[in-house]
Amino acid sequence: MLKTAKAIPASIVTSVTREPLSGSKKIYVSNEANTFKVAMRHIELSPTLLRGSGDTAEYEENEPVRVYDTSGPYTDPSIDIDLNKGLPKFRKDWIDARNDTVQLENFSSDFTNQRLIDELDIEPFENKPKPRIAAEGKNVSQMHYARQGIITPEMEYIAIRENLGRASIPQDQIAELTAKGLPKEITAEFVRKEIAEGRAVMPMNINHPELEPMIIGRNFLVKINANIGNSALGSSIDEEVEKMVWSTRWGGDTVMDLSTGKNIHETREWIIRNSPVPIGTVPIYQALEKVKGIAEDLTWELFRDTLIEQAEQGVSYFTIHAGVLLEYVPLTANRVTGIVSRGGSIMAKWCLAHHKENFLYTHFDDICEIMKAYDVTFSLGDGLRPGSIADANDAAQFGELKTLGELTQKAWKHDVQVMIEGPGHVPMDKIKANMDEQLHHCYEAPFYTLGPLVTDIAPGYDHITSGIGAAQIGWYGTAMLCYVTPKEHLGLPNKDDVKTGIITYKIAAHAADLAKGHPNSQVRDDAMSKARFEFRWEDQFNIGLDPDTARAYHDATLPKESAKVAHFCSMCGPKFCSMKITQEVRDQYGTGSEYAKQQEAAAVGMQEKSIEFVKLGSEIYKPDFNEANS
Amino acid sequence: MLKTAKAIPASIVTSVTREPLSGSKKIYVSNEANTFKVAMRHIELSPTLLRGSGDTAEYEENEPVRVYDTSGPYTDPSIDIDLNKGLPKFRKDWIDARNDTVQLENFSSDFTNQRLIDELDIEPFENKPKPRIAAEGKNVSQMHYARQGIITPEMEYIAIRENLGRASIPQDQIAELTAKGLPKEITAEFVRKEIAEGRAVMPMNINHPELEPMIIGRNFLVKINANIGNSALGSSIDEEVEKMVWSTRWGGDTVMDLSTGKNIHETREWIIRNSPVPIGTVPIYQALEKVKGIAEDLTWELFRDTLIEQAEQGVSYFTIHAGVLLEYVPLTANRVTGIVSRGGSIMAKWCLAHHKENFLYTHFDDICEIMKAYDVTFSLGDGLRPGSIADANDAAQFGELKTLGELTQKAWKHDVQVMIEGPGHVPMDKIKANMDEQLHHCYEAPFYTLGPLVTDIAPGYDHITSGIGAAQIGWYGTAMLCYVTPKEHLGLPNKDDVKTGIITYKIAAHAADLAKGHPNSQVRDDAMSKARFEFRWEDQFNIGLDPDTARAYHDATLPKESAKVAHFCSMCGPKFCSMKITQEVRDQYGTGSEYAKQQEAAAVGMQEKSIEFVKLGSEIYKPDFNEANS
Repeated sequence: MLKTAKAIPASIVTSVTREPLSGSKKIYVSNEANTFKVAMRHIELSPTLLRGSGDTAEYEENEPVRVYDTSGPYTDPSIDIDLNKGLPKFRKDWIDARNDTVQLENFSSDFTNQRLIDELDIEPFENKPKPRIAAEGKNVSQMHYARQGIITPEMEYIAIRENLGRASIPQDQIAELTAKGLPKEITAEFVRKEIAEGRAVMPMNINHPELEPMIIGRNFLVKINANIGNSALGSSIDEEVEKMVWSTRWGGDTVMDLSTGKNIHETREWIIRNSPVPIGTVPIYQALEKVKGIAEDLTWELFRDTLIEQAEQGVSYFTIHAGVLLEYVPLTANRVTGIVSRGGSIMAKWCLAHHKENFLYTHFDDICEIMKAYDVTFSLGDGLRPGSIADANDAAQFGELKTLGELTQKAWKHDVQVMIEGPGHVPMDKIKANMDEQLHHCYEAPFYTLGPLVTDIAPGYDHITSGIGAAQIGWYGTAMLCYVTPKEHLGLPNKDDVKTGIITYKIAAHAADLAKGHPNSQVRDDAMSKARFEFRWEDQFNIGLDPDTARAYHDATLPKESAKVAHFCSMCGPKFCSMKITQEVRDQYGTGSEYAKQQEAAAVGMQEKSIEFVKLGSEIYKPDFNEANS
Repeated sequence: MLKTAKAIPASIVTSVTREPLSGSKKIYVSNEANTFKVAMRHIELSPTLLRGSGDTAEYEENEPVRVYDTSGPYTDPSIDIDLNKGLPKFRKDWIDARNDTVQLENFSSDFTNQRLIDELDIEPFENKPKPRIAAEGKNVSQMHYARQGIITPEMEYIAIRENLGRASIPQDQIAELTAKGLPKEITAEFVRKEIAEGRAVMPMNINHPELEPMIIGRNFLVKINANIGNSALGSSIDEEVEKMVWSTRWGGDTVMDLSTGKNIHETREWIIRNSPVPIGTVPIYQALEKVKGIAEDLTWELFRDTLIEQAEQGVSYFTIHAGVLLEYVPLTANRVTGIVSRGGSIMAKWCLAHHKENFLYTHFDDICEIMKAYDVTFSLGDGLRPGSIADANDAAQFGELKTLGELTQKAWKHDVQVMIEGPGHVPMDKIKANMDEQLHHCYEAPFYTLGPLVTDIAPGYDHITSGIGAAQIGWYGTAMLCYVTPKEHLGLPNKDDVKTGIITYKIAAHAADLAKGHPNSQVRDDAMSKARFEFRWEDQFNIGLDPDTARAYHDATLPKESAKVAHFCSMCGPKFCSMKITQEVRDQYGTGSEYAKQQEAAAVGMQEKSIEFVKLGSEIYKPDFNEANS
């Protein structure tokens, strides 16, 4: 039975960040039937000075920029949050309404029940909810509903969330931006179809009703994941809860709790109950803790109990290294860095110790039965991913990838959602092949990559070495990018490292969205450019991914408030300014003047001819990448 | 006449950084005739523990990693450097030996002569050397020698420097790495040919004999440039000299002095006399200062005097915005951000004010006469480059690019070296077109780009938004990448910003070299991976681009010395380690064992088939990018 709860450590209650982002306002968009609201963020802009000054000044309003918001209720000051109770369970009614689940009186995991009576050295989550499970013979995965033609409220929610008011963008602009194959509008039916056909996943365990529905697929905005979690070397529950809130504040779409130290179960409960985004885990990590780090002592029964333990807490996706087959293990012997995936090496060790096939592979159907009872999504782990540039795209990696494709088909037979994990460490010239091989062998299931790092020679800067690869593979079609922090390969990330990793990956994901032609992405860049051209400094800070840092850098050179409205920037100084001169060009020729337009049309004609020439030209001219990739 | 020199401000003498990089040793490689030595850097590695421990331990030596060294004498503690005298003029004998130059008693620039008698509020460089110029009717450009079939010592020096002991790499490995068209060995004749045909440039003014010869071309290592220089808003000479030393320490191949404030002439003298790398400038900036920032007051005569002033100081390349033609100016009127290049907007303003053609264009042949008299290289400026994602690849930009190609042909008629400047702000899907258009319209003259930034929404992180684009365009064939610091668009970079910009761009350039197949680049990555696999922590720090930061990050998690030899890393902690398990895999199957090799061969066969299938497959599978680009 439950212990009488003690007072929660103050640090947890007080330490999470609550302020809205600078210049941003939380807004809520209702669906047509007005049955629910979707949270978004409005970056409010100051008006453009047209002419005059003081009382005679004439201004033109600038529309607020609407952006995708992952931060949940934390950035809405009007909402009271009690971390001891967790976030509001607003998805509960939708789950109840489907009438295909039951609430259990007790937990189905022996481990969980043991923890509830154990004397703990930390404070467990007080209001641990009772677990929910699919009713006898039911399958509660969103893929199952989608394949039956059912549009769930979650799908409708996602359609509104991904659209970001796309309808308000001029049609000709949308047409241009969506010329590369993205839909003009994201409808709930489009979401359903992508889920039904396995091109996208919606990770949302029925035991995590607090989360705001989101989707991962290459026809939607590119998503990013932040890894948190304590290790044998330290960090505490309150630090991890704050890291979760902190990473969603800056744009993390999902969070993986990779805790390997003590109190994994209780840490995870605190994180899930307070998380507005899906939580993923690597269950084999906790299973290994349960056998005191002795991989050969792992058993299917123990692993199964761990899956159920975590599924009943509300974990929305599991990394499962079921593709590490006995036959692939020797392929890593000649590698420079062998097996670097922790999960991969755990399973390799188990296979070698017992000289038996990987029990995750032999019990894959049993795992699917658990996944569909809670709607947990597979993140099929790349246990044999390369750990160095030298090992990229080798036989072990691509051998495992084919097996992951085979397992994808198996999971889909159960209507269980699947995404595929990818590398890792890959030089730029070998990145595209990773995407092509994955699309081919895994039947277009969403790809979820770690970076990849495009070189290994910059420890301390691996957020950058990997951000370069992440932007490219995101553009090629990867649906979610797992962030890398500056501490990768060196130590455990602190709060600042988490923020740096998130911002770097938001850059990579947004650059990919731009290159893919997402209409709303271009809107944000254009708003920034216009603000920059008009010297609206506060708007530039606020439109950016990190207003605080931008403002601090600006003030380091031009601290005075007046500088923020000055019509010059800190690079050139007051005497000369190139932007001012452009204004004079406009005064002479006029924006959109007939003369200017004719000149441009003529020049564009010439330019198109020359590009034509290049494309038709001798083989020293490669195909226009734009074409080759779209 | 010269004023009697006062004591040099102590800050200059004391503030430049002199220590070797952690774990590195300066080495010197002689040419065959033993007439000169080329400086390189050896990163010395600790041995690999094979078996045993303590007295019974058996070790295997690890070869030092040889890397390209831009830091000059500053990182050689055995060399005395007197900043008041400047660096040794070791190229002087080579220039003398060619017997085609004369030393002038007085400077040819009125401005220079005026500065020599003016009362200054700062300390000029005491030992200002007398200027050297081509003898009557002579052309002293390296391109001129190359086209006559002459191999200069500078070319021989560069061949050794770029080779980096490539000969010591196993031939089969080289063959594999150079399969993409790079030469197995860089010979002096190869250097000559690339220069003669205009595919590469060697910026080396005869008045900068202190510099160590280097080359910029897409068949050589990708180079990076660091911008420094004070502005109306501050910074001092000693700060700028230290910034120059600091940026070459971390890998800057060239430095552009973009000073726009006071004492530009004297600041530049201090920088050039103490610089081991070529210095570039944008002469129009100083010309504008001379007319108090009034662009319309600029004249050819004043600009000409500025070119001569700077050429006689030893500037090795000039950014000249001769492609900003009157007809292109209106094409910018409809842009989101108009003209953002300072040089471009200065010339646009001049053209509009006088409604005359750009005098840099009309006087281009006159400029060529000056360039070949001192061997100054053209960096043809992209004055109409896009200043935002929205304006990328537009009519104004590509119109100017064609004109730059026309000017390239003009300069080559004079045997004057040329590189072409490129953008700027370009989304990923439009980067490749920039490279293709440049190669086509500019006859394969080296491309020198600023980034490009792949999105505008991350002020404060533009080293990253631009590093992503820089890595890609470097891989596509750009020869030099101009760095961007975190302060871009916000303020003036300090020393930390300069380092961050340099390291980020070294990552981009190295990633491009790897993707292009440079043998030595792969060697460094492999050495890092092996050190990582063997837990040689100190070696990992030292092989990296920034050993100090890597060590500090590591120690933040595992401060104890013992941790640096511990056979586990800070991510997993002591109890479990994936790398340890790989060791067990090797113990079982053995590195290079027959069994492992057979398994691998079999799997590779399968893998090749599947890649084959992908390439032949239906059109949803794009051409392998590796192929499309190599």
